Amino acid sequence: MENFIFHNPTKIIFGRGMENEVGKEVVKFSRKILLHYGGGSIKQTGLYDRVVTSLKNAGVEFWELGGVKPNPRLSLVREGIRICREQGIDFILAVGGGSTIDSAKAIALGVPYQGDVWDFYTWKAEPQTALPVGTILTIPAAGSESSPSSVITNEDGWYKKGFGSDLIYPKFSILNPELAFTLPKYQVACGASDIMAHLMERYFTPTANVELTDRLCEATLKTIINNVPTVLEEPDNYDAWAEIMWAGTVAHNELLNTGRLGDWASHQIEHELSGIYDVAHGAGLAVIFPAWIKYNYHHNIPLFAQYFTRVWNVDHSFSNPEQTILEGIKRLEAFYHRIGLPTTLAEINIPADRLEEMADKCTDYGRYKVGGFVKLNRDDVLKIYQLASK
Amino acid sequence: MENFIFHNPTKIIFGRGMENEVGKEVVKFSRKILLHYGGGSIKQTGLYDRVVTSLKNAGVEFWELGGVKPNPRLSLVREGIRICREQGIDFILAVGGGSTIDSAKAIALGVPYQGDVWDFYTWKAEPQTALPVGTILTIPAAGSESSPSSVITNEDGWYKKGFGSDLIYPKFSILNPELAFTLPKYQVACGASDIMAHLMERYFTPTANVELTDRLCEATLKTIINNVPTVLEEPDNYDAWAEIMWAGTVAHNELLNTGRLGDWASHQIEHELSGIYDVAHGAGLAVIFPAWIKYNYHHNIPLFAQYFTRVWNVDHSFSNPEQTILEGIKRLEAFYHRIGLPTTLAEINIPADRLEEMADKCTDYGRYKVGGFVKLNRDDVLKIYQLASK
Repeated sequence: MENFIFHNPTKIIFGRGMENEVGKEVVKFSRKILLHYGGGSIKQTGLYDRVVTSLKNAGVEFWELGGVKPNPRLSLVREGIRICREQGIDFILAVGGGSTIDSAKAIALGVPYQGDVWDFYTWKAEPQTALPVGTILTIPAAGSESSPSSVITNEDGWYKKGFGSDLIYPKFSILNPELAFTLPKYQVACGASDIMAHLMERYFTPTANVELTDRLCEATLKTIINNVPTVLEEPDNYDAWAEIMWAGTVAHNELLNTGRLGDWASHQIEHELSGIYDVAHGAGLAVIFPAWIKYNYHHNIPLFAQYFTRVWNVDHSFSNPEQTILEGIKRLEAFYHRIGLPTTLAEINIPADRLEEMADKCTDYGRYKVGGFVKLNRDDVLKIYQLASK
Repeated sequence: MENFIFHNPTKIIFGRGMENEVGKEVVKFSRKILLHYGGGSIKQTGLYDRVVTSLKNAGVEFWELGGVKPNPRLSLVREGIRICREQGIDFILAVGGGSTIDSAKAIALGVPYQGDVWDFYTWKAEPQTALPVGTILTIPAAGSESSPSSVITNEDGWYKKGFGSDLIYPKFSILNPELAFTLPKYQVACGASDIMAHLMERYFTPTANVELTDRLCEATLKTIINNVPTVLEEPDNYDAWAEIMWAGTVAHNELLNTGRLGDWASHQIEHELSGIYDVAHGAGLAVIFPAWIKYNYHHNIPLFAQYFTRVWNVDHSFSNPEQTILEGIKRLEAFYHRIGLPTTLAEINIPADRLEEMADKCTDYGRYKVGGFVKLNRDDVLKIYQLASK
């Protein structure tokens, strides 16, 4: 186990109707806030009205900025920063999924910074402070509600870049599983895939002797695998949604990578996909992860055999552990298909003509390698895109 | 799953040599502190010198109060409160195990309170504030390093009482597994038993549909069960100690009971034991828990069968689940014996002549019931003491 610091200060407020408490939480920080959201589904479901009522009852004044899209855009972040500066706003409330929360975090970083917020995402500057952010989560997926990270897409070149800092842990996050009842099935599946990927990125580690966090990751993965098919059949099953929503947060709140390095190559490889083609992140991960495993499992056969035995209930072949892994990959792919996700680029109509370009961008034209478990160069990444094509 | 709030603000600083960072952490809060510790083993191991050096290098002035005993005493807490008030001290640094940390938390509660600190432990008053506490953990066991609770024994009547409040989460806790290398084997085993009990108290719940936290508890229990025999044979096995130390914290930091009620009867039943006889808390729990399970498993056969199947690898008898449980109890008792703990009162030379008195005290002379999973009256508690005798 590696030395580590773990300090997640986000207050989680979990359960039915908890969004009605948002005003009381917000006033602990500010009476003048930016209300940030996505495409407007929160207005159709009535969530918007409940939030506004709670804010007004608490005496909180708010400005609105909707329109966050999946793969949230830098241009909207800059618009949010401008509004906050003009109005003297000092708190951002994100109501939505990971894209909205990531966009809120970027605004929070940008407001007190003299330069361009994109500097942080391109390692040109380190933030010294950020506005506080609160969230009401509507989609279990990205884990951004209790994470120190944010991913933003710069439309100028379609660069998708992540940034992490303790400054952007949300102050509070309200998680009401009922808010997920109305999600489209494809979005549910993509969210599940994202949560699973967060766990697998942590699981496939170069660090030895990490039994507790191995087992915690397995526990969380099994919970997702058991409950996602249930909510696809019964969208208003509160109990199953509660498992998924809490698992999605636990998967990404930094506890499950304490003392271990993660991999994260699959995320970076997928970022190029969703950056260029604007595919849903979770669908891209379902395509990339099996290919990544096929390409890399030889680096640690016992770890992959443990994964597929403990998480996917494969009967371990002691005489031929590789057989355990190959059977496990089939179960993983079958699960993605069962919940309605693709496992090849062909299934999402992405042709093979730009794989080289994506491998270039992913590795900055071969200048750098991706992945903590196995370090992949530009040609490795290309081969994974090729494996994912078929 | 029940609605819940989860907000654990303790910063965990984990790894080799981390105690040398303590001065830097302390000065973020204070330059005038109480250094609180136990029987002086920290002086023999050199830990005391390293802590003092780090504090001095950071410019922190400190007063000392050693002498904390297992089942920490109210009289020493009052002494600590007096010193802090006289010297204008506003931070308590606990260096030791759960007893030292619990004692530090009690001092932290008492200093700013006009009345007697025991009021909090007897529900006569609610604290409004507390001094900040930091810890350097030397014994993985009580979980107090990242919990909101404290247990103190009042020598006037030998009442052992627990108190919980968000005010007493430590601000930081330093966990260096190397500090556990010199622990006596019996203390190691007692610590393991305490950690296991924290997990079992959470596991045996009346709340339905709590799959994620079930699985997280199982993961943590399995880690303890796998690693404790290793450190008993190899006291300087860092990797195994790291698993135990981190598992001990995770077991009790409130994450694993999110959305579920716990039981805690076994802890209350054991408190009377260690209150009267001053037996080690972990040894008392090893005696009480099997008896508690025998007395209560009929209330939820599937839950106990799940526990023994998943945690103790019992081959589940689908035709006769009770058989799974009875085999599991034998494995649990065998494990306690293997690590050197008793499973009956007779083994720790506690006679049967004061069982009625303990049952009286535990239930306030029949006025109240213990346990969240099964509510036990005075006679139930007596029967558990009787089962534990044999």
